[in-house]
Amino acid sequence: MIEPFDDAYFMKKAIQEAEKAYDSGEIPVGAIVVVDNKIIARAHNLTETLHDVTAHAEMQAITAAANYLGGKYLSGCTMYITLEPCQMCAGALYWSQISKIVYGATDQHRGYTVMGAKLHPKTEVVSGVMEQESASLLKRFFIEKRNLN
Amino acid sequence: MIEPFDDAYFMKKAIQEAEKAYDSGEIPVGAIVVVDNKIIARAHNLTETLHDVTAHAEMQAITAAANYLGGKYLSGCTMYITLEPCQMCAGALYWSQISKIVYGATDQHRGYTVMGAKLHPKTEVVSGVMEQESASLLKRFFIEKRNLN
Repeated sequence: MIEPFDDAYFMKKAIQEAEKAYDSGEIPVGAIVVVDNKIIARAHNLTETLHDVTAHAEMQAITAAANYLGGKYLSGCTMYITLEPCQMCAGALYWSQISKIVYGATDQHRGYTVMGAKLHPKTEVVSGVMEQESASLLKRFFIEKRNLN
Repeated sequence: MIEPFDDAYFMKKAIQEAEKAYDSGEIPVGAIVVVDNKIIARAHNLTETLHDVTAHAEMQAITAAANYLGGKYLSGCTMYITLEPCQMCAGALYWSQISKIVYGATDQHRGYTVMGAKLHPKTEVVSGVMEQESASLLKRFFIEKRNLN
């Protein structure tokens, strides 16, 4: 059976990005940007590798997508993210006027909703897509990190 | 008389960065990062030039300062910014754990305070330093932009 281009299909691609982060010792978060079922940007968290707090998956995906499109606005685009964005990434998504975001796991400590930040009123939000898969990867990362110390 | 290394001294340097943005047709916002009276990063808004909503002065200054210091945390650093940070930049400053921020003009529409975003509890905030100079530059930019259209 041919796999449909639905939210789960694209979230799997974002999780593949998160797995790359995991393999590099980075907090495993991945993001992709999709337009008309085409992936135009893929990114994963690189804060440790780059020693840069701004190198979240979403920030890099926004920059890459804008570069691909040749303009700074991401209207018509959907971003799939394995974890709820933080307030920095929500703020960047706000400026991009992206049409839709779909995220997996909720971040109850540093997610944009609990922190009070806002997305653009034009942005549709879907949450909980393949939540368990994303949350399990994060949980495994932090357990392994604790065991190393 | 030798000029003291006070908040006004460093804010003037940030305004010089904002003037570079102005000259490039960018919304005139500048930021510098200071440690022990030494400027370790200078940046100005480049969102139009780079077609990238993430290219705010503060974001670039954080990346440059972390690169200079060789680590992602900016404890011990002060950022001087001509305009109140937006929620994206406040979120990035939050992750950096910067010790202090000093800003000039308030952004009553898109500033982090009105948007509900938060800085790190460790971060001291000073506002209103050379507010008029920064606000005037922004006002002039938007009047000229309107007159061009």
